[in-house]
Amino acid sequence: MTDISPLAPESFPDIAAIPGVQLAAGACGVRYSGKLDVLLVELAEGTEVAGVFTKSQTAAAPIDWCKQSLSNGKARALVVNSGNANAFNGVAGIASVERTADQTSKIVGCAAEDVFIASTGVIGEALPDEKITNALAGLKSDLGSDWQAAADAICTTDTYAKGSVRQVKIGDTDVTIGGIAKGSGMIAPDMATMLAFVFTDAAIPQNILQRLLSKSAEQSFNSITVDSDTSTSDTVLLFATGQAKHEWVAAVGDAHLRDFRQALDEVMLDLAQQVVRDGEGATKFVEIKVSGAADDAAAKKIGLSIANSPLVKTAIAGEDANWGRIVMAVGKSGERADRDKMSISMGGVEIAAVGQAVDGYDEAPVAKHMKGQEIDIAVDVGIGHGSATVWTCDLTHGYISINADYRT
Amino acid sequence: MTDISPLAPESFPDIAAIPGVQLAAGACGVRYSGKLDVLLVELAEGTEVAGVFTKSQTAAAPIDWCKQSLSNGKARALVVNSGNANAFNGVAGIASVERTADQTSKIVGCAAEDVFIASTGVIGEALPDEKITNALAGLKSDLGSDWQAAADAICTTDTYAKGSVRQVKIGDTDVTIGGIAKGSGMIAPDMATMLAFVFTDAAIPQNILQRLLSKSAEQSFNSITVDSDTSTSDTVLLFATGQAKHEWVAAVGDAHLRDFRQALDEVMLDLAQQVVRDGEGATKFVEIKVSGAADDAAAKKIGLSIANSPLVKTAIAGEDANWGRIVMAVGKSGERADRDKMSISMGGVEIAAVGQAVDGYDEAPVAKHMKGQEIDIAVDVGIGHGSATVWTCDLTHGYISINADYRT
Repeated sequence: MTDISPLAPESFPDIAAIPGVQLAAGACGVRYSGKLDVLLVELAEGTEVAGVFTKSQTAAAPIDWCKQSLSNGKARALVVNSGNANAFNGVAGIASVERTADQTSKIVGCAAEDVFIASTGVIGEALPDEKITNALAGLKSDLGSDWQAAADAICTTDTYAKGSVRQVKIGDTDVTIGGIAKGSGMIAPDMATMLAFVFTDAAIPQNILQRLLSKSAEQSFNSITVDSDTSTSDTVLLFATGQAKHEWVAAVGDAHLRDFRQALDEVMLDLAQQVVRDGEGATKFVEIKVSGAADDAAAKKIGLSIANSPLVKTAIAGEDANWGRIVMAVGKSGERADRDKMSISMGGVEIAAVGQAVDGYDEAPVAKHMKGQEIDIAVDVGIGHGSATVWTCDLTHGYISINADYRT
Repeated sequence: MTDISPLAPESFPDIAAIPGVQLAAGACGVRYSGKLDVLLVELAEGTEVAGVFTKSQTAAAPIDWCKQSLSNGKARALVVNSGNANAFNGVAGIASVERTADQTSKIVGCAAEDVFIASTGVIGEALPDEKITNALAGLKSDLGSDWQAAADAICTTDTYAKGSVRQVKIGDTDVTIGGIAKGSGMIAPDMATMLAFVFTDAAIPQNILQRLLSKSAEQSFNSITVDSDTSTSDTVLLFATGQAKHEWVAAVGDAHLRDFRQALDEVMLDLAQQVVRDGEGATKFVEIKVSGAADDAAAKKIGLSIANSPLVKTAIAGEDANWGRIVMAVGKSGERADRDKMSISMGGVEIAAVGQAVDGYDEAPVAKHMKGQEIDIAVDVGIGHGSATVWTCDLTHGYISINADYRT
């Protein structure tokens, strides 16, 4: 593992036990030796589950399995391994997933279809699933609340474990939302090599849970990019164990669900931003706000065009306020923009307006902003009222070093 | 200028005089000091012209001018400068183009609308067009056939001048097709900071010339990518001076035009591939053939998804046959692919078939291929009969070094 990202949070959050969630991490040797690489989560009976997955046409076998299981809406266990994505392994990959689910169901005492599975790591190598299934009995006896170990176990090239937690009330009842995520490269909407598992003791019916998750993912995990590459294994799962005894939730818009909705969005965004902050080789965290677009979807597409531009990202790495590359990236997005009405700000300083550099533009404050670790870019494209915010990191020598010899 | 790309051709081709084409390059100090940075081409009366331009929504002022001039279909002069793209300069940028066209028309003795203009370089800085117009009289008196100087004058971060030439017959008459191009970064379909100017003494009506150019560009300049970034200044112009006295060309499909069509495609592809071979930081030239797609357009999109993937490109830089990243890039393209029927070859060695690694796959010959400078990738996605070939280069530390401090 390389040095911890300079953009990492100070510490892993203190996530207390969430009623109905027990977890354990282990080192089963799928690829690494000694590193935690397998996670078992056992969930209380009655747990509801929602999911969002990669849109890749070459999705990994576990994605197919989870989508199938999701149709039941119930979950009793989650098994995650790192080091091998079990992707592009043909029928052998499917059999690996089935064996893992079958063995887990026996250990936990549930139906195989209530077991969710995710794998992350190298593509196209057979998954030695017996190493995972051999570890399950030991993990079952170790179940507890070591969230940091759980977050560690799902990491690959990540430089730090990612967790987030919020306490919130539904009506008068305290509930907790806690989650872990992994991701560092191959990060792009929709989601990339990104796994996130969020748990709550709230009691929320599956159809409502799914709508909450989908909406929240759109403005968090689907609004980040490291390198524009989308993984075959992206998975975000939200589990609600129903152990908290709050009043009945009947609809997404329920007033007593307002704080929960907001807290869920915060946990999701916190985890998503932590993934960007651990972008391979990242030295700068970049927030890009786009306004004035034809609609919100157009604004997001423009924002991601800027966020994915190698020339914009290398300029930021070089602490160069090269806003001409932002103009270029807006132009190539394919969305409407009025060249002669556009304005661009960096670090809150207006650089260009009505299609050209502002009179007497002083680069000094912008150059100072570029030397910091948090870069803000705002672009108005002069067409309409659509807006969006996306997040990315810079593109550095570190990215090249990490990825030119990842597999070897 | 950095060291010459290791992928450069051995030498600039020997391009003889093309009847009706006279050119001269000079150093007018737009940005660089001492470097050739301005090109004047004078074209015989009756020259027909065709063009293909960037699809950027934030195209530079010269693009608007050329599109307007193209509607007349006639050309008498071309002026190109490097060092400043005259992009995102608002009304001042438009006035710069108009003054340059006006002054050129006086020097050459033609209408302003018969003057074509292209600029390449930094975006968002005012173009000191008086430096260009002051140089015009001197260039006029220097007109000749120094093609290499012309190719040098249009370069920015290029490490070598790019030219190509073919001799061919239309009927029994000899004609020449010769061209120059520039481009190194910000290269992606549609075309990126890529300028190419191709000249022939053939006599071809404008409507036919445009169809020939558009078709040829689709399989050359629109099938290459260095970094997925599309410039605001992309321009390909094809001038036919009509000085050769061959039989009348009545249609694109004329039998006596067959060799000409092929030679034009060769010149265009040669220039386009030279741009890729000069990709910023490139150490490998990569050809990607996609077959089995829903149609040719889908195949091209899949090819470019592979060609633009930072993870694929860094793996190639690292000489790592990490074909899992190719699976990923196919999957994220958005086009249909059958995961369980896909096959992948590198260097002519089949690595994966029917959705998984082939039995007994021996990486040794592929590893050897990866150490070479010319990398071949072939992917069949198992859906239909669409196919396409695209070209790119690897993504190296050199790209980061060049682009993190280009403007400063």
